[in-house]
Amino acid sequence: MQLTKFSDYALRVLMYAECAGDRLVTIDEISEAYGISRAHLMKVVNALTRAGFLTAMRGRSGGLKLAKPAHSIVLGDVVRSTETNFDLVECFSTGNHCVITGCCRLPRVLNEALQAFIEVLDGYTLANVALKPKTFAVTTSRSR
Amino acid sequence: MQLTKFSDYALRVLMYAECAGDRLVTIDEISEAYGISRAHLMKVVNALTRAGFLTAMRGRSGGLKLAKPAHSIVLGDVVRSTETNFDLVECFSTGNHCVITGCCRLPRVLNEALQAFIEVLDGYTLANVALKPKTFAVTTSRSR
Repeated sequence: MQLTKFSDYALRVLMYAECAGDRLVTIDEISEAYGISRAHLMKVVNALTRAGFLTAMRGRSGGLKLAKPAHSIVLGDVVRSTETNFDLVECFSTGNHCVITGCCRLPRVLNEALQAFIEVLDGYTLANVALKPKTFAVTTSRSR
Repeated sequence: MQLTKFSDYALRVLMYAECAGDRLVTIDEISEAYGISRAHLMKVVNALTRAGFLTAMRGRSGGLKLAKPAHSIVLGDVVRSTETNFDLVECFSTGNHCVITGCCRLPRVLNEALQAFIEVLDGYTLANVALKPKTFAVTTSRSR
Protein backbone atom coordinates (compact mmCIF):
# COMPACT_ATOMS: atom_id res chain seq x y z
CA MET A 1 0.00 0.00 0.00
CA GLN A 2 1.58 3.21 -1.16
CA LEU A 3 0.60 6.78 -1.91
CA THR A 4 1.30 7.79 -5.50
CA LYS A 5 4.50 9.66 -6.31
CA PHE A 6 2.16 12.49 -7.26
CA SER A 7 0.92 12.82 -3.65
CA ASP A 8 4.45 12.40 -2.31
CA TYR A 9 5.75 15.21 -4.56
CA ALA A 10 2.72 17.41 -3.84
CA LEU A 11 3.42 17.26 -0.11
CA ARG A 12 7.09 18.05 -0.72
CA VAL A 13 6.24 21.03 -2.96
CA LEU A 14 3.93 22.48 -0.32
CA MET A 15 6.57 21.97 2.38
CA TYR A 16 9.10 23.74 0.17
CA ALA A 17 6.76 26.68 -0.49
CA GLU A 18 5.98 26.92 3.22
CA CYS A 19 9.68 26.91 4.05
CA ALA A 20 10.28 29.83 1.65
CA GLY A 21 7.85 32.04 3.56
CA ASP A 22 6.85 35.14 1.55
CA ARG A 23 9.46 34.57 -1.13
CA LEU A 24 8.13 33.32 -4.49
CA VAL A 25 9.62 29.99 -5.50
CA THR A 26 10.07 28.50 -8.97
CA ILE A 27 9.58 25.00 -10.32
CA ASP A 28 13.26 24.95 -11.38
CA GLU A 29 14.29 25.68 -7.82
CA ILE A 30 12.06 22.96 -6.33
CA SER A 31 13.28 20.55 -9.00
CA GLU A 32 16.87 21.27 -8.06
CA ALA A 33 16.23 21.12 -4.33
CA TYR A 34 14.60 17.69 -4.39
CA GLY A 35 16.17 16.24 -7.55
CA ILE A 36 12.72 15.67 -9.05
CA SER A 37 12.18 16.19 -12.79
CA ARG A 38 10.71 19.53 -13.85
CA ALA A 39 8.07 17.72 -15.95
CA HIS A 40 6.74 15.83 -12.94
CA LEU A 41 6.68 18.96 -10.83
CA MET A 42 4.81 20.97 -13.49
CA LYS A 43 1.87 18.57 -13.24
CA VAL A 44 1.99 18.54 -9.45
CA VAL A 45 2.17 22.35 -9.23
CA ASN A 46 -0.71 22.73 -11.69
CA ALA A 47 -2.86 20.38 -9.63
CA LEU A 48 -1.96 22.16 -6.38
CA THR A 49 -2.75 25.53 -7.96
CA ARG A 50 -6.08 24.31 -9.33
CA ALA A 51 -6.95 22.83 -5.93
CA GLY A 52 -6.28 26.17 -4.22
CA PHE A 53 -3.19 25.17 -2.22
CA LEU A 54 -0.70 27.21 -4.30
CA THR A 55 -0.94 30.57 -6.03
CA ALA A 56 1.04 31.12 -9.23
CA MET A 57 2.19 34.70 -9.86
CA ARG A 58 2.89 35.25 -13.55
CA GLY A 59 5.55 37.39 -15.14
CA ARG A 60 9.33 37.65 -15.11
CA SER A 61 9.61 37.94 -11.35
CA GLY A 62 6.72 35.53 -10.85
CA GLY A 63 6.68 32.26 -9.01
CA LEU A 64 4.70 30.18 -6.57
CA LYS A 65 3.60 30.66 -3.01
CA LEU A 66 1.10 29.08 -0.67
CA ALA A 67 -2.44 30.21 -1.48
CA LYS A 68 -3.31 30.32 2.22
CA PRO A 69 -1.53 30.11 5.57
CA ALA A 70 0.14 26.77 6.30
CA HIS A 71 -2.11 26.17 9.31
CA SER A 72 -5.12 26.31 6.93
CA ILE A 73 -3.76 23.63 4.62
CA VAL A 74 -5.05 20.33 6.01
CA LEU A 75 -2.92 17.33 4.98
CA GLY A 76 -6.04 15.17 4.57
CA ASP A 77 -7.39 17.68 2.04
CA VAL A 78 -4.11 17.66 0.12
CA VAL A 79 -4.03 13.85 -0.10
CA ARG A 80 -7.74 13.68 -0.99
CA SER A 81 -7.00 16.09 -3.82
CA THR A 82 -3.84 14.46 -5.17
CA GLU A 83 -4.58 10.78 -4.49
CA THR A 84 -7.28 10.25 -7.06
CA ASN A 85 -7.37 6.48 -6.70
CA PHE A 86 -8.50 5.19 -3.33
CA ASP A 87 -9.71 1.91 -4.84
CA LEU A 88 -8.23 -0.32 -2.15
CA VAL A 89 -9.48 -3.50 -3.81
CA GLU A 90 -10.98 -4.42 -7.19
CA CYS A 91 -14.63 -3.94 -6.16
CA PHE A 92 -13.94 -0.26 -5.33
CA SER A 93 -13.20 0.45 -8.99
CA THR A 94 -15.35 0.66 -12.10
CA GLY A 95 -13.73 -2.34 -13.84
CA ASN A 96 -14.82 -4.66 -11.05
CA HIS A 97 -15.46 -8.31 -11.92
CA CYS A 98 -15.55 -9.80 -8.41
CA VAL A 99 -18.47 -12.21 -8.28
CA ILE A 100 -19.23 -11.68 -4.60
CA THR A 101 -19.80 -7.93 -5.02
CA GLY A 102 -23.10 -7.11 -3.44
CA CYS A 103 -23.02 -9.74 -0.70
CA CYS A 104 -19.42 -9.12 0.44
CA ARG A 105 -18.91 -7.34 3.75
CA LEU A 106 -15.24 -6.55 3.20
CA PRO A 107 -15.72 -3.16 1.44
CA ARG A 108 -17.38 -1.68 4.54
CA VAL A 109 -14.43 -2.76 6.71
CA LEU A 110 -11.84 -1.49 4.21
CA ASN A 111 -13.71 1.80 3.84
CA GLU A 112 -13.69 2.19 7.61
CA ALA A 113 -9.90 1.61 7.62
CA LEU A 114 -9.42 4.11 4.78
CA GLN A 115 -11.53 6.64 6.66
CA ALA A 116 -9.35 6.18 9.75
CA PHE A 117 -6.26 6.76 7.62
CA ILE A 118 -7.60 10.02 6.19
CA GLU A 119 -8.94 11.19 9.56
CA VAL A 120 -5.42 11.11 10.99
CA LEU A 121 -4.23 13.29 8.10
CA ASP A 122 -7.20 15.59 8.73
CA GLY A 123 -5.75 16.22 12.16
CA TYR A 124 -2.58 17.78 10.76
CA THR A 125 -1.87 20.89 8.71
CA LEU A 126 1.13 21.93 6.67
CA ALA A 127 2.20 24.02 9.67
CA ASN A 128 2.53 20.82 11.73
CA VAL A 129 5.10 19.43 9.31
CA ALA A 130 6.87 22.72 8.57
CA LEU A 131 10.57 22.38 7.85
CA LYS A 132 13.18 24.53 9.51
CA PRO A 133 14.01 27.64 7.40
CA LYS A 134 17.61 26.50 6.96
CA THR A 135 16.62 23.13 5.44
CA PHE A 136 17.01 24.38 1.88
CA ALA A 137 19.55 27.10 2.71
CA VAL A 138 21.97 26.21 -0.10
CA THR A 139 19.33 26.00 -2.81
CA THR A 140 17.38 29.10 -1.81
CA SER A 141 20.41 31.33 -1.43
CA ARG A 142 21.58 30.20 -4.89
CA SER A 143 18.17 30.97 -6.39
CA ARG A 144 17.91 34.48 -4.97
CA MET B 1 -3.71 4.23 -2.59
CA GLN B 2 -4.52 0.59 -3.18
CA LEU B 3 -3.88 -2.77 -1.62
CA THR B 4 -2.05 -5.16 -3.92
CA LYS B 5 -4.04 -7.69 -5.94
CA PHE B 6 -2.20 -10.26 -3.82
CA SER B 7 -3.90 -8.99 -0.64
CA ASP B 8 -7.23 -8.66 -2.43
CA TYR B 9 -7.05 -12.28 -3.64
CA ALA B 10 -5.79 -13.52 -0.27
CA LEU B 11 -8.84 -12.10 1.47
CA ARG B 12 -11.11 -13.64 -1.16
CA VAL B 13 -9.46 -17.06 -0.82
CA LEU B 14 -9.93 -17.02 2.95
CA MET B 15 -13.57 -15.95 2.56
CA TYR B 16 -14.08 -18.81 0.11
CA ALA B 17 -12.48 -21.36 2.44
CA GLU B 18 -14.56 -20.04 5.35
CA CYS B 19 -17.71 -20.33 3.29
CA ALA B 20 -16.94 -23.98 2.50
CA GLY B 21 -16.90 -24.89 6.20
CA ASP B 22 -15.35 -28.31 6.81
CA ARG B 23 -15.23 -29.20 3.14
CA LEU B 24 -11.76 -29.14 1.56
CA VAL B 25 -11.55 -26.74 -1.37
CA THR B 26 -9.22 -26.75 -4.36
CA ILE B 27 -7.35 -24.00 -6.16
CA ASP B 28 -9.18 -24.94 -9.38
CA GLU B 29 -12.49 -24.44 -7.66
CA ILE B 30 -11.51 -21.02 -6.22
CA SER B 31 -10.09 -20.04 -9.60
CA GLU B 32 -13.39 -20.91 -11.26
CA ALA B 33 -15.52 -19.25 -8.60
CA TYR B 34 -13.76 -15.89 -8.79
CA GLY B 35 -12.43 -16.00 -12.36
CA ILE B 36 -8.88 -15.52 -11.07
CA SER B 37 -5.99 -17.32 -12.79
CA ARG B 38 -4.77 -20.52 -11.15
CA ALA B 39 -1.16 -19.25 -11.30
CA HIS B 40 -2.01 -16.18 -9.24
CA LEU B 41 -3.97 -18.24 -6.73
CA MET B 42 -1.15 -20.76 -6.32
CA LYS B 43 1.14 -18.02 -4.99
CA VAL B 44 -1.56 -16.58 -2.78
CA VAL B 45 -2.48 -19.99 -1.34
CA ASN B 46 1.19 -20.82 -0.70
CA ALA B 47 1.64 -17.55 1.18
CA LEU B 48 -1.53 -18.08 3.21
CA THR B 49 -0.44 -21.62 4.06
CA ARG B 50 3.04 -20.50 5.08
CA ALA B 51 1.53 -17.73 7.21
CA GLY B 52 -0.69 -20.22 9.04
CA PHE B 53 -4.07 -19.08 7.74
CA LEU B 54 -4.70 -22.10 5.52
CA THR B 55 -3.88 -25.78 5.87
CA ALA B 56 -3.14 -27.81 2.75
CA MET B 57 -4.10 -31.49 2.91
CA ARG B 58 -2.12 -33.50 0.36
CA GLY B 59 -3.25 -36.48 -1.68
CA ARG B 60 -5.96 -37.31 -4.18
CA SER B 61 -8.80 -36.19 -1.96
CA GLY B 62 -6.74 -33.35 -0.55
CA GLY B 63 -7.43 -29.66 -0.61
CA LEU B 64 -7.40 -26.55 1.48
CA LYS B 65 -9.18 -25.44 4.59
CA LEU B 66 -8.80 -22.72 7.18
CA ALA B 67 -5.94 -23.49 9.57
CA LYS B 68 -7.92 -22.05 12.50
CA PRO B 69 -11.45 -20.87 13.24
CA ALA B 70 -12.58 -17.81 11.25
CA HIS B 71 -12.98 -15.79 14.44
CA SER B 72 -9.25 -16.32 15.13
CA ILE B 73 -8.16 -14.97 11.75
CA VAL B 74 -7.67 -11.23 12.26
CA LEU B 75 -7.95 -9.23 9.03
CA GLY B 76 -5.13 -6.91 10.12
CA ASP B 77 -2.83 -9.94 10.47
CA VAL B 78 -3.79 -11.17 6.99
CA VAL B 79 -3.07 -7.80 5.36
CA ARG B 80 0.17 -7.37 7.34
CA SER B 81 1.21 -10.79 6.02
CA THR B 82 0.22 -10.28 2.36
CA GLU B 83 0.87 -6.56 1.89
CA THR B 84 4.63 -6.62 2.00
CA ASN B 85 5.08 -3.02 0.88
CA PHE B 86 3.72 -0.38 3.24
CA ASP B 87 6.17 2.24 1.93
CA LEU B 88 3.61 5.04 1.70
CA VAL B 89 6.15 7.53 0.35
CA GLU B 90 9.71 7.36 -1.01
CA CYS B 91 11.46 7.88 2.33
CA PHE B 92 9.81 4.73 3.75
CA SER B 93 11.74 2.59 1.26
CA THR B 94 15.36 1.58 0.94
CA GLY B 95 15.92 3.40 -2.37
CA ASN B 96 15.13 6.75 -0.78
CA HIS B 97 16.76 9.85 -2.26
CA CYS B 98 14.62 12.54 -0.63
CA VAL B 99 16.97 15.28 0.57
CA ILE B 100 14.85 16.31 3.56
CA THR B 101 14.93 12.83 5.12
CA GLY B 102 16.03 13.22 8.71
CA CYS B 103 14.47 16.62 9.33
CA CYS B 104 11.06 15.89 7.74
CA ARG B 105 8.10 15.43 10.09
CA LEU B 106 5.80 13.90 7.50
CA PRO B 107 6.81 10.23 8.04
CA ARG B 108 5.59 10.32 11.64
CA VAL B 109 2.19 11.63 10.51
CA LEU B 110 1.90 9.10 7.67
CA ASN B 111 2.93 6.28 9.98
CA GLU B 112 0.23 7.34 12.42
CA ALA B 113 -2.32 7.25 9.57
CA LEU B 114 -1.09 3.82 8.46
CA GLN B 115 -1.35 2.57 12.02
CA ALA B 116 -4.94 3.80 12.22
CA PHE B 117 -5.72 1.94 8.98
CA ILE B 118 -4.31 -1.34 10.28
CA GLU B 119 -5.91 -0.92 13.71
CA VAL B 120 -9.35 -0.88 12.10
CA LEU B 121 -8.53 -4.15 10.33
CA ASP B 122 -7.26 -5.54 13.65
CA GLY B 123 -10.78 -5.05 14.97
CA TYR B 124 -12.28 -7.51 12.49
CA THR B 125 -11.87 -11.22 11.93
CA LEU B 126 -12.73 -13.43 8.97
CA ALA B 127 -15.91 -14.37 10.85
CA ASN B 128 -17.04 -10.73 10.68
CA VAL B 129 -16.93 -10.79 6.88
CA ALA B 130 -18.19 -14.35 6.44
CA LEU B 131 -20.22 -14.93 3.29
CA LYS B 132 -23.55 -16.69 3.30
CA PRO B 133 -23.17 -20.43 2.59
CA LYS B 134 -25.21 -20.15 -0.61
CA THR B 135 -22.90 -17.48 -2.12
CA PHE B 136 -20.92 -20.02 -4.10
CA ALA B 137 -23.71 -22.60 -4.31
CA VAL B 138 -23.35 -23.24 -8.06
CA THR B 139 -19.59 -23.65 -7.97
CA THR B 140 -19.38 -25.76 -4.86
CA SER B 141 -22.14 -28.16 -5.90
CA ARG B 142 -20.36 -28.61 -9.24
CA SER B 143 -17.06 -29.36 -7.49
CA ARG B 144 -18.43 -31.95 -5.10
